Amino acid sequence: MFETAELGRKVSKSDYKKLVPELRVQLLEIQQQVRQANIPVVIVLAGVDGAGKGATVNLLNEWMDPRWISTHAYTDPSDEERERPPFWRYWRDLPGRGAFGMFMSAWYSKPILEWVHEVTDHSELDEELSQINNFEKMVVDDGAIVIKFWMHLSRAAQKRRLKKLESDPLLRWKVTEKDWKNWRLYERFIEVAERTMQKTSTGGAPWHIIEGEDDNYRNLAVAAIVRDTLKRKLDQARQLTEHPPVEVGELTEQIESVTETLSQQTSILESLPRDLVLEKSEYKRALKEQQARLSDLFRKAGKKQKGDSIILLFEGSDAAGKGGAIRRITASLDARSYRVIPIAAPTDEEQAHHYLWRFWRHIPRKGRVTIYDRSWYGRVLVERVEKFAKEEEWRRAYSEINDFEEHLVSSGVLLLKFWLHVDPDEQLARFKLREQTPHKAWKLTDEDWRNRDKRQEYEEAVDDMIQRTSSTIAPWFLVEGNNKYYARVKVLTTVCDQLEAQLKSKIEE
Amino acid sequence: MFETAELGRKVSKSDYKKLVPELRVQLLEIQQQVRQANIPVVIVLAGVDGAGKGATVNLLNEWMDPRWISTHAYTDPSDEERERPPFWRYWRDLPGRGAFGMFMSAWYSKPILEWVHEVTDHSELDEELSQINNFEKMVVDDGAIVIKFWMHLSRAAQKRRLKKLESDPLLRWKVTEKDWKNWRLYERFIEVAERTMQKTSTGGAPWHIIEGEDDNYRNLAVAAIVRDTLKRKLDQARQLTEHPPVEVGELTEQIESVTETLSQQTSILESLPRDLVLEKSEYKRALKEQQARLSDLFRKAGKKQKGDSIILLFEGSDAAGKGGAIRRITASLDARSYRVIPIAAPTDEEQAHHYLWRFWRHIPRKGRVTIYDRSWYGRVLVERVEKFAKEEEWRRAYSEINDFEEHLVSSGVLLLKFWLHVDPDEQLARFKLREQTPHKAWKLTDEDWRNRDKRQEYEEAVDDMIQRTSSTIAPWFLVEGNNKYYARVKVLTTVCDQLEAQLKSKIEE
Repeated sequence: MFETAELGRKVSKSDYKKLVPELRVQLLEIQQQVRQANIPVVIVLAGVDGAGKGATVNLLNEWMDPRWISTHAYTDPSDEERERPPFWRYWRDLPGRGAFGMFMSAWYSKPILEWVHEVTDHSELDEELSQINNFEKMVVDDGAIVIKFWMHLSRAAQKRRLKKLESDPLLRWKVTEKDWKNWRLYERFIEVAERTMQKTSTGGAPWHIIEGEDDNYRNLAVAAIVRDTLKRKLDQARQLTEHPPVEVGELTEQIESVTETLSQQTSILESLPRDLVLEKSEYKRALKEQQARLSDLFRKAGKKQKGDSIILLFEGSDAAGKGGAIRRITASLDARSYRVIPIAAPTDEEQAHHYLWRFWRHIPRKGRVTIYDRSWYGRVLVERVEKFAKEEEWRRAYSEINDFEEHLVSSGVLLLKFWLHVDPDEQLARFKLREQTPHKAWKLTDEDWRNRDKRQEYEEAVDDMIQRTSSTIAPWFLVEGNNKYYARVKVLTTVCDQLEAQLKSKIEE
Repeated sequence: MFETAELGRKVSKSDYKKLVPELRVQLLEIQQQVRQANIPVVIVLAGVDGAGKGATVNLLNEWMDPRWISTHAYTDPSDEERERPPFWRYWRDLPGRGAFGMFMSAWYSKPILEWVHEVTDHSELDEELSQINNFEKMVVDDGAIVIKFWMHLSRAAQKRRLKKLESDPLLRWKVTEKDWKNWRLYERFIEVAERTMQKTSTGGAPWHIIEGEDDNYRNLAVAAIVRDTLKRKLDQARQLTEHPPVEVGELTEQIESVTETLSQQTSILESLPRDLVLEKSEYKRALKEQQARLSDLFRKAGKKQKGDSIILLFEGSDAAGKGGAIRRITASLDARSYRVIPIAAPTDEEQAHHYLWRFWRHIPRKGRVTIYDRSWYGRVLVERVEKFAKEEEWRRAYSEINDFEEHLVSSGVLLLKFWLHVDPDEQLARFKLREQTPHKAWKLTDEDWRNRDKRQEYEEAVDDMIQRTSSTIAPWFLVEGNNKYYARVKVLTTVCDQLEAQLKSKIEE
């Protein structure tokens, strides 16, 4: 989930200086429009210590008109507060119509800390999170706009930051033993953050994960999301009342410049190394070894009567080598034990049901393997980019998918998700080769060429997908696919490693 | 919650015979329209054993075209099913567009039974219920209509039914030891049913509680709700596409007759005895006694440092005696310890917030008492009847209110809700007396007379309110108010009893 917030995104000082003045004018203008429209705005800032929650909230106060903003940070409850239900303090502070409330961690703080320190277990955590959902739903139903930011720092970046503060005589006091203690609990914080975000990212109150290491990037990203969300919601509100869309001063055409700078940031796919290569001889050796290993592991799994079912799914750009990777796996399996489901256009019957229905029906029995060549992620990839699904449909699909995968994994399914990536040059080379190779030409369609033109949109969709659906229970495995040999062996090895780990944990039980 | 399903509602054989033919035609007609509109329909039938789930589903199949209906009952999962996630069996059976699926207990069965038999605790139950909410939301978001019925029988009615079956040589086999065992667990079933319904009655998939004892009433009530819900949803769908509303054959004007028969059923307020009277001398004695008791209990509560806060709220028809009852309570309290909040039009500041905000702000500190003269229930009473709130607003208010009250009670607040009732004749007499008594004349406004005309609508609103918000943790106390003396003493005694019980349970902790 946090992979996309560890890419080292940054904005240079000169770009920042150039962009900030107009962004401020836009924010101020939109703030006035929100005031006139009598809409309350709730902004939640949570996240890893030191990822810039405080700095960001100060900045938003500076960039907008602070008379209509109130900022709320919460320490231990006062006795006034302790004597009332826990949510009383948040209700007190809710902004009225036309005002902004900035909430630091707020209602997320207690559930997260209590789980990290083992005061609560998973189902108690979930109960608190569903209470939060009810609360936020009530606020949204009443007409408020809710925007939630999670500021992220990698474990290493957080350590760097603490070390740097400690080495500065003037700032050393800022680092306490508690900070280091929390840092040592980093993995638990990330685990609970992930669950929290999955359970509370709703249509009305979605989370945005922001990479927090570079101040300039973080400030621009947060401010742009605030600006764009408010503008979108104002436009929606006006559409209902048949008013014309919001004119942000005369700046509407300029609103793009910050967005453009931000979209030029490295995407997760661009961050993958391009030059991983396996020589043919080495490939042959490794392939043989891993296939024998898989066959062996698979038989072991079945024998021990612990054979939970396995689902492998493959997504990736066209010509990324999905088919080839799949064949190298099935070669190790008994044909009676697996099934490959290539996802093409749905059948009539499938079309008549919920889009997940066709995937539910193919869930394998115990001890069997289902391999999806493309999958339910089509909803947030091709259906999003090609506009087959409405925006509200693909937006809510993230939580529907997380939910579906939780059903799978908690019933014992081993679910492995692979994204095979090739860069544009390699893809072009493969397309051309296909054109020239008679028995492969059928694989190449006009659509493939069209998809290539939409590469930028697909990359954004992949970034969002990984941010919202890569989780501890069902992580995405990103496979560098420029070299087919490397990719196939990486996929095989990953399947073996994961299956082995699952077997081991079963035996320990 | 189930008070309104224990009123002995019934429909005579002759009425039933008269009404059924046209209802069947309407149902068939609407079923065709749903098919043409390609909308899937999910109907869930759950409830107390013997309350007629099976009979009702058979009837719906008989009254509609069974080719487009599939009915699903679930026993222990097959091995096919056991080897997949628990929801797999329900996904398999979901109806396609234009078809009806009738689900007997289905996904509600396991969470309810496991809680009754103490396999799960409250937070595990809640987790399963929130999984159900996600599932149903997904189905609704996809365009399905979901209608859920809970068939209810009182404990006594269930016993009568079992006894009757046992005494019939031909039907005796139907009664097993398990039935009696379940009957002995009746209270636990009701408790979990209540929680289940509170947590899973959502805007998209609301529950309807049906009194199951009289077959005729039950059949008509269920069929009418199916008919009306489908018609409403079809009309909504057509509004979006700017089609004209559904014409149910030429029966649209006749659609009222079943509705009318059903609305002539006893309301919960009409079921209250009208002639409870306390003589003046007895009143004086009891008043003194209970006031002393309250004052004593209240001091005890404070002394033990266990003084949780108390919230009393009073609703009722105009001139039902709310003010008088409140004064008899405050007479026993120290003026520094309580506050009476009369709910009139909201202030500017309150108007700028969520409607519950004004109630949250007045939540008392520990050891204090807040008395609301009218309350948050205005949302589902006056605001509903007078159309100050939109239908979607008052409909979702039930779960918002349940949620709010759960916050209160789980933080230790003793919450007592009183409905004071006078019948129309007594109300009229009081209005006339007010007109003639100079120092009371200000109390009577034109609005009071107008409200009187809407008595029927108010009674329906009260029925719904009690069905949806009377819960084990925050029950409604209905007070027969035709005799003021009786009513005041009943209120005082109830407050004392409840406070005493709360104190006792604290001490036992």
